[in-house]
Amino acid sequence: MPGPTIESAAGRGLVHCRVPIALGDRSYDILIGDGLIADLRTWQGLPAARTAVIVSNPTVSALHGDALRSALAQVYPQLINVDLPDGEVHKQWASLDVLFDRLLAQACDRRTTLFALGGGVVGDMAGFAAACYMRGVPFVQVPTTLLAQVDSSVGGKTAINHPRGKNMIGAFYQPLRVVCDLALLDTLPRRELSAGLAEVVKYGPIADPAFLDWIEAHADALMARDRSALAHAVRRSCEIKAGVVGADERETGLRAILNFGHTFGHAIEAGLGYGQWLHGEAVGCGMVMAADLSARLGLVPVDFVSRLRRLCERCGLPVRAPHLGGTGRWIDLMRVDKKAEGGELRFVLIDGIGRATLRAVPDAVLLETLAACCEPGP
Amino acid sequence: MPGPTIESAAGRGLVHCRVPIALGDRSYDILIGDGLIADLRTWQGLPAARTAVIVSNPTVSALHGDALRSALAQVYPQLINVDLPDGEVHKQWASLDVLFDRLLAQACDRRTTLFALGGGVVGDMAGFAAACYMRGVPFVQVPTTLLAQVDSSVGGKTAINHPRGKNMIGAFYQPLRVVCDLALLDTLPRRELSAGLAEVVKYGPIADPAFLDWIEAHADALMARDRSALAHAVRRSCEIKAGVVGADERETGLRAILNFGHTFGHAIEAGLGYGQWLHGEAVGCGMVMAADLSARLGLVPVDFVSRLRRLCERCGLPVRAPHLGGTGRWIDLMRVDKKAEGGELRFVLIDGIGRATLRAVPDAVLLETLAACCEPGP
Repeated sequence: MPGPTIESAAGRGLVHCRVPIALGDRSYDILIGDGLIADLRTWQGLPAARTAVIVSNPTVSALHGDALRSALAQVYPQLINVDLPDGEVHKQWASLDVLFDRLLAQACDRRTTLFALGGGVVGDMAGFAAACYMRGVPFVQVPTTLLAQVDSSVGGKTAINHPRGKNMIGAFYQPLRVVCDLALLDTLPRRELSAGLAEVVKYGPIADPAFLDWIEAHADALMARDRSALAHAVRRSCEIKAGVVGADERETGLRAILNFGHTFGHAIEAGLGYGQWLHGEAVGCGMVMAADLSARLGLVPVDFVSRLRRLCERCGLPVRAPHLGGTGRWIDLMRVDKKAEGGELRFVLIDGIGRATLRAVPDAVLLETLAACCEPGP
Repeated sequence: MPGPTIESAAGRGLVHCRVPIALGDRSYDILIGDGLIADLRTWQGLPAARTAVIVSNPTVSALHGDALRSALAQVYPQLINVDLPDGEVHKQWASLDVLFDRLLAQACDRRTTLFALGGGVVGDMAGFAAACYMRGVPFVQVPTTLLAQVDSSVGGKTAINHPRGKNMIGAFYQPLRVVCDLALLDTLPRRELSAGLAEVVKYGPIADPAFLDWIEAHADALMARDRSALAHAVRRSCEIKAGVVGADERETGLRAILNFGHTFGHAIEAGLGYGQWLHGEAVGCGMVMAADLSARLGLVPVDFVSRLRRLCERCGLPVRAPHLGGTGRWIDLMRVDKKAEGGELRFVLIDGIGRATLRAVPDAVLLETLAACCEPGP
């Protein structure tokens, strides 16, 4: 995995680093630091354009829109704001169409640069819109949630939902830059902080036992939004993700390990209706379930399951799956997962802490995990 | 430009060749021949999958669907047919959504291979759907119109229309193979044959004076659907396009020359309402207008305009632009063209026969061309 470049330029805050994503002519940097948005150097080197479009949602726009507009106004002659409705339920074509209509009405051309200011929903929609508008325009991710900073804004996955499944329609489309300003996390609701920590925790079991130890030692600091703890968590998460994405941009193999906990998690989100549980909450619970499954298959010791459950609890995450209507419904919900092939369910499992593997699982074992991890029916 | 590989395998028809498109790990072949669909060798070497989906429209499906199904049934265990409504007006998200719904309902996974059986509309929709479904699945173009065989199915441009502009939403997404079966052209309506010839004619002025001479010598044979004349026309067109696309996959420069006649043509299509004139008809007329503009700027002799007009007429194409409501409307319609940048109109012009150039044009000269080439208002 490529190491980060630490910069210590005068005037930068205490924490500032750059994690490169190596993808040939689609390579880019993740900038991580405190107060990056207001620092004009953050925006240097992007392709010249007449127009920048800030895609956000009303909540984030009210909190951070002015700061980004002030900075970008010094770089682009024309700024356009488009606030899309917030929430997974709005991550659909109708929202994109609102954006496309604005772009065309304002005569935005192929050089127009889209800035995604928001969490995963905004990033997914703005990224997919950038991938499709005139067959692709430049875009920059400015993630405002911890989850987006450590996961969804990095790696070029963009998508919208379909009534039959989450993230079913989308594109692999890389941003020109990802700007993770830690100061933005101050306004994050507590539940969303926890949801982001779920994706941070994920990187330990799949890739780095020492990072898992570190998270356990700093869980309280992370929950208290200690700036330097968050900086390390974001940086190490991005480094691990950068290594995986650099090796498998289009998820033909290795990249699937980033979906640890996600097959169960997607079933929870779809089964309850998108937006009931946050994505990170569903992933947190899904990781405990996938750990349980791994232990039942003899891949990890049984005490790893309780260790991961305890850590998720400390991060404020749910660790017991909701009742979704029986095991048949669970399996139906999981079968639309994109990792399924030829109708066969496949799970990301932990094969010794720090190593993940993608494999099919005997039905009987899967049923044991569902029985052990789910709330009983009414 | 890469030359074609001529195969003379026993059992092949008289005309059969392969034009490679060199795009690194997205490289593929265009197969050109007589009776290719029914020949099982045409389908060898595609990635293994459980399911193939034939995307077509009711007209083409009735004519050629059985032949393709018979062949593919020997390669894929499961075949799904999805007929989308025909015509530019249906090249929109609602049609794609019908397709996505079927794919998800049938549990189509990331290996599911989409076959576009039809003209440009089907190819654009199936290609864009393949680009987006689960962030990209394999697809194969089986163009059934001359226009699709020589132009739209080659090069990876896919798109749908937006009420504010044609092909505004799409992706660069390469097929795994393009299968140009000349036998399919027997059922093509005469008007569509002419529309296809417009794109064939295009390659002469922009890239190959000798090919322009050849088309003039064989215009009657092409209009009579002489199989060997068509074979040469398709092959040479694909070779030229392959060279251009190989040098500029994402249309950052050179590739724009393939849009000779298209800025005027798109204005005609949008101004009359999509579907009134066929795309190739609008391009034919647009080429005459772009030639007129080139001559007024001193880039080609004036007699080139009459030469191109005469050839288009012999190919059954309209050569006089319709009244669209005045020059202001023309300019508004042209300004949404994707080649526009910073609101400035740019045209593909002929700078000596066989060489194209993209440039802005003084308003006064543009108005002269509009006055000379358009029908007067009522």
